[in-house]
Amino acid sequence: MTDANQTTGLQLRSTIRKSGELELSLAEVALPEPGPDQVLVKIEATPINPSDLGPLLGPADMASAKASGSGPGIKVTAQVPAAALPSLATRLDQPMPVGNEGAGTVIKAGSSDAAQALKGKTVSMVGGAMYAQYRLLKATDCQKLPAGTTAAEGASWFVNPLTALGMTETMKREGHKALVHTAAASNLGQMLNRICLEDGIGLVNIVRSPEQAKLLRGIGAKHVVDSSAPSFTDDLTQALVETGATIAFDAIGGGKLASQILTAMEIAINKTAKEYSRYGSAIHKQVYIYGGLNTGPIELTRNYGQAWGVGGWLLTPFLQKIGRDGQTPLRQRVVNELKTTFASHYTRTISLTEVLDLKNIATYNKRATGEKFLINPNKG
Amino acid sequence: MTDANQTTGLQLRSTIRKSGELELSLAEVALPEPGPDQVLVKIEATPINPSDLGPLLGPADMASAKASGSGPGIKVTAQVPAAALPSLATRLDQPMPVGNEGAGTVIKAGSSDAAQALKGKTVSMVGGAMYAQYRLLKATDCQKLPAGTTAAEGASWFVNPLTALGMTETMKREGHKALVHTAAASNLGQMLNRICLEDGIGLVNIVRSPEQAKLLRGIGAKHVVDSSAPSFTDDLTQALVETGATIAFDAIGGGKLASQILTAMEIAINKTAKEYSRYGSAIHKQVYIYGGLNTGPIELTRNYGQAWGVGGWLLTPFLQKIGRDGQTPLRQRVVNELKTTFASHYTRTISLTEVLDLKNIATYNKRATGEKFLINPNKG
Repeated sequence: MTDANQTTGLQLRSTIRKSGELELSLAEVALPEPGPDQVLVKIEATPINPSDLGPLLGPADMASAKASGSGPGIKVTAQVPAAALPSLATRLDQPMPVGNEGAGTVIKAGSSDAAQALKGKTVSMVGGAMYAQYRLLKATDCQKLPAGTTAAEGASWFVNPLTALGMTETMKREGHKALVHTAAASNLGQMLNRICLEDGIGLVNIVRSPEQAKLLRGIGAKHVVDSSAPSFTDDLTQALVETGATIAFDAIGGGKLASQILTAMEIAINKTAKEYSRYGSAIHKQVYIYGGLNTGPIELTRNYGQAWGVGGWLLTPFLQKIGRDGQTPLRQRVVNELKTTFASHYTRTISLTEVLDLKNIATYNKRATGEKFLINPNKG
Repeated sequence: MTDANQTTGLQLRSTIRKSGELELSLAEVALPEPGPDQVLVKIEATPINPSDLGPLLGPADMASAKASGSGPGIKVTAQVPAAALPSLATRLDQPMPVGNEGAGTVIKAGSSDAAQALKGKTVSMVGGAMYAQYRLLKATDCQKLPAGTTAAEGASWFVNPLTALGMTETMKREGHKALVHTAAASNLGQMLNRICLEDGIGLVNIVRSPEQAKLLRGIGAKHVVDSSAPSFTDDLTQALVETGATIAFDAIGGGKLASQILTAMEIAINKTAKEYSRYGSAIHKQVYIYGGLNTGPIELTRNYGQAWGVGGWLLTPFLQKIGRDGQTPLRQRVVNELKTTFASHYTRTISLTEVLDLKNIATYNKRATGEKFLINPNKG
């Protein structure tokens, strides 16, 4: 049976029940015929990004996870703390597909020219429900990859690249001239470092170990500050003086780091200030939290005046804000530089069934820097 | 000797020394002759606002305060923690005058028509150095008060009224339809409540005791929530559902209140949401911290998605942002409604010397709701 004759495919589903139970399973779903403007894509590569873990696992306590069944009948259950249920009201008891982005081969195409032009081609996609063997979507929502680019190379074309470009864009649009990035040795951090080197933007990379510092320096990073070093605060302040960075993107969230960054920014600004400002410097200092490597509370010790802000930052609202016109040059740059600036590295490639393996869950749920899984839903 | 023949006057000075010592004293300063466009005002009323306490006391530990001397020779010293000194670098060893706003009588005027028109008149002022017996400033920087309005009635014409109006203006300009205010039984809070009642704006008043709740209900507040009540979270959520408030102005700062407000906003939004949004609601929820009744760390427990922000809010940058054109209607409204909407109440009127009395410092430094001092620098 060829792919074009396939009538059903597996799709990963995440359900949180009113009773407080998370259930992960694989559903066998019927494959719809493409409409005139649609294509059916056989998904060959889709990454597990930190931003997929929220939809996938919710706030469940994965230490309590249990597995049953095997093969496509595998099921994982875990407990969700009762306190978290009110904020999940709108997804309770609804099986949800997962997976932001992916890439694969177009195996069926609708009658339109745009759809027919993609037949047999390798394409990248974004839009959810990618942890599945097949995905139906509009031809115009597919990004055709250059010849010689594999699905694995094109799988992470959207979330990390546009997040990294979104950071430098946000920096410029909000009037800052350099930026700080935390957990900077990550795939995303390395990408951001390459962008900043190319574009001549000052970047302060905060990492959490000497090994990560070495890794970043090895790929040309100019300002690398290790938060595990006793001289962290002084090193950070010095890097802020040198770059003039007044905006930070923080993947960690919980703890004191956001506050430490604001404090160091204020000290750096005051080192060049000419007169006393009684409410602290008038220069706005901003930390955007875009991740939750530490899901504990954020602790802000206000010793940086009143011109500061801390807030959530997310790719989708940013893209909505800049509109299609703002997005087009960013997307084009990603496709042009997919094997260089925007290359991703994976530690393992797993099947859909292996996504539900408890040992694998424990590994990818750690969100450890340098550890990244790619799913091939059609892996045998 | 009449006021016009006066050649010197007392001015309160606050100095933080490099050694880490705060010193408060009264300086005898020469009174300059007004230039053509200037007037000399005998200050008769100037309030101690929470926003004056930063410049006045800095981060000094006032429990360590010592007084010496008496009358105009009085001196108060206290220790500033060494950790706070770097952020004060630009004010170290520089005696600073204090006092944002005040009112008094014009006793000398320059030759210009604008200056001459104010001679003998009662005026309100803003611009610092008001904790003094006399203040020289430009005639155009004086706000002439309507006949029958006293200096005491006009002293608090700027900081609280424009802060309260700045909150409803910020709410409108940032696209919110109702707002939350904390420490809502304060002078400022009562003012904001009167503005919102007049303008038909939904206001959720958060107070810290049943007495304060009663006070606000007594002046017509519709939504009053007591954070000391066991039902606080539910009460707050209900008030947010009823008003649709998605922006808060918080005078407290430290602790968990800002986070609790964001959580309750998210729950209130989700109660009316139709479909699940995997990163929480897409509606931006904002808390602006404009005071520091609790100077401890802010603790943010993120269970409200990614569309949120917490930041400092200060009157001066807000006024700069809206420009003179934006300010004029607000200032005019304040002068028109000085005895009604924008009336302030004081618990005591003290002299300049009494500002340096340790018992008085202990009282006004508590920033207790309902407790407010007025200074009459020319009080005998």
